[in-house]
Amino acid sequence: MGDLRVRDIGEFALIDRLAEALGPVGLGAGYGVIRGIGDDAAVLQQTPGTRLLASCDMLVEGLHFDLSYFNPRQLGWKALAANLSDIAAMGGRPRWALVSLGLKPDMMVNFVEEIYAGIAELAMEHSVVVVGGDTCSSPERLIIDICILGEAYRTKVAYRSGAQDGDMILVTGWLGSSAAGLACLRDEKGAAVSGREELLQAHLTPVPRVKEAAYLMNSGLVGAMNDISDGLATELHEITQASGCGARIWADRLPLSPAVRDAAGQLGVDPLEWALYGGEDYELLVTATGGKNSPLKLRRLSRSLKTGTGIFLSAIGRIVSPPGVEIVYPGERVETLPPAGYNHFKRGS
Amino acid sequence: MGDLRVRDIGEFALIDRLAEALGPVGLGAGYGVIRGIGDDAAVLQQTPGTRLLASCDMLVEGLHFDLSYFNPRQLGWKALAANLSDIAAMGGRPRWALVSLGLKPDMMVNFVEEIYAGIAELAMEHSVVVVGGDTCSSPERLIIDICILGEAYRTKVAYRSGAQDGDMILVTGWLGSSAAGLACLRDEKGAAVSGREELLQAHLTPVPRVKEAAYLMNSGLVGAMNDISDGLATELHEITQASGCGARIWADRLPLSPAVRDAAGQLGVDPLEWALYGGEDYELLVTATGGKNSPLKLRRLSRSLKTGTGIFLSAIGRIVSPPGVEIVYPGERVETLPPAGYNHFKRGS
Repeated sequence: MGDLRVRDIGEFALIDRLAEALGPVGLGAGYGVIRGIGDDAAVLQQTPGTRLLASCDMLVEGLHFDLSYFNPRQLGWKALAANLSDIAAMGGRPRWALVSLGLKPDMMVNFVEEIYAGIAELAMEHSVVVVGGDTCSSPERLIIDICILGEAYRTKVAYRSGAQDGDMILVTGWLGSSAAGLACLRDEKGAAVSGREELLQAHLTPVPRVKEAAYLMNSGLVGAMNDISDGLATELHEITQASGCGARIWADRLPLSPAVRDAAGQLGVDPLEWALYGGEDYELLVTATGGKNSPLKLRRLSRSLKTGTGIFLSAIGRIVSPPGVEIVYPGERVETLPPAGYNHFKRGS
Repeated sequence: MGDLRVRDIGEFALIDRLAEALGPVGLGAGYGVIRGIGDDAAVLQQTPGTRLLASCDMLVEGLHFDLSYFNPRQLGWKALAANLSDIAAMGGRPRWALVSLGLKPDMMVNFVEEIYAGIAELAMEHSVVVVGGDTCSSPERLIIDICILGEAYRTKVAYRSGAQDGDMILVTGWLGSSAAGLACLRDEKGAAVSGREELLQAHLTPVPRVKEAAYLMNSGLVGAMNDISDGLATELHEITQASGCGARIWADRLPLSPAVRDAAGQLGVDPLEWALYGGEDYELLVTATGGKNSPLKLRRLSRSLKTGTGIFLSAIGRIVSPPGVEIVYPGERVETLPPAGYNHFKRGS
């Protein structure tokens, strides 16, 4: 059984094995699942009064991930994490996932089951049920496309367009850790970095900020929110463009972990490059309403978030009225920050 | 502008152009779309009292389609058609689609816009809105993965498991037309087939039976329903396995169009092979409750379906109590019908 390959097994037998690998994450009784895997479509029961949230994210071997770094369980985890992060960024609760896999015919069935086990592990933590998907052959590259469905109460949806002049700009957690982790995987000098494990984990098995997003939304202070999948610079541009405003951030306020700083030193990289353009941090970028008493409220929010989730908030800048994004370096040197970020086509070709 | 390739344009610029290619199908005001393309997730408003239906379907170049037959507009149409068919098969109304594309960097941007135009054309006919998706690079093969969301009132969901002993087995339209069309595309003898255009259309731009499914559900007679994507034999096995019963069909009742018969003659193929194992017909396979007065009700349903949609129903067999699927050939020769169908891995490798 252990050396069975995808090409040796029919599609239906494979789907049965994958459903088994999901365990309770494939069943979902009590999680709004009337019918999951095994019919023409899943039948789901939405929570009354909520909006439905839907997003999808396609990962291609050799472009978004490299199987020399990722084991299949990490890959499954990360593919779902990217999706959960999108729902979190809307202020929502992820509920159901559909998983499409393009599989190389000579892949081991065990390997595919491990991808599913990684998906199941993270799904379980968030009470997300895998309710469907598709499997087919993709001769050259493994492809994972997950569609995630979530819910949010109508008054608690966070849009990109919600930023207002005077809002504080906040981020959760550390920036640049995922890019630093990838650099450590690619460069042998990365072996000596202290905190290497923490950086690898940030790249291989990022933790989506679902619970943190709920805390933020409940505070009533959130203006706009994005998850940082394409790098801080690009996400800031998306928010300012959608909101019709500008942003100014302070370089020395960007939260760089000691591990990121050490890796940057060892590898001879500017850590700000990772923080601004690295991408895949899956932290939340939030603008919080200004106004009277807001510093006090923000301090309170920051404290309660830290206590409730272990994740800290950093104030990194302000929403301003002229368009564009500026970064202020120490010594008051101000530069415009272009929206470089991540270009899937140019990077891959 | 006309000779721009995918690699020459950033992901964000491409997404903007694709959103434009969708026209009104990308906007969706009044179609339950609070926020469509352009945030971390789409925000949708479900119709109160309905169940949510969700399904996805991944197509890979060279396995599911061949760009020497398909123009991009047909391809977009067919990718969405397969998804709409899954929602129809549950008795539902398709509402929103998310489109993930893996694109070869040297593809023309125009080509990708045409795929979207094909999606938009069919989406418009069914008031379906494209609310999201993803685009990324797939160096060797074009990949299209669509996730479809639909709705159905809770008492009007058709499951595979709803067949009961004594039910009539019905199909809409013709069987085997798609496989005959593919054979005509692949074999130069296909050029002489009368009704060739009709067969090519069945393969290249199949029409999902959304309206027909609604008629059937409203009759209150439907037991189980599947769409015929993997061939009649496989779909029958799925229904009988899910329902814990068997099926017996009559070979001479299978609806083969004159064009299918002519193509079979010209190409030296048994047309039953196409009807039973060809797949991709996207017709509906339905079991209809037996009982007193049911022949009369079925005749009435059949008539009203023909009048309302132009599509006829054929009674091709009965649900029986012993498990397995049997086919009765002229002269009362009875054989068991194996669930061969479509195996994506074996076929592709």
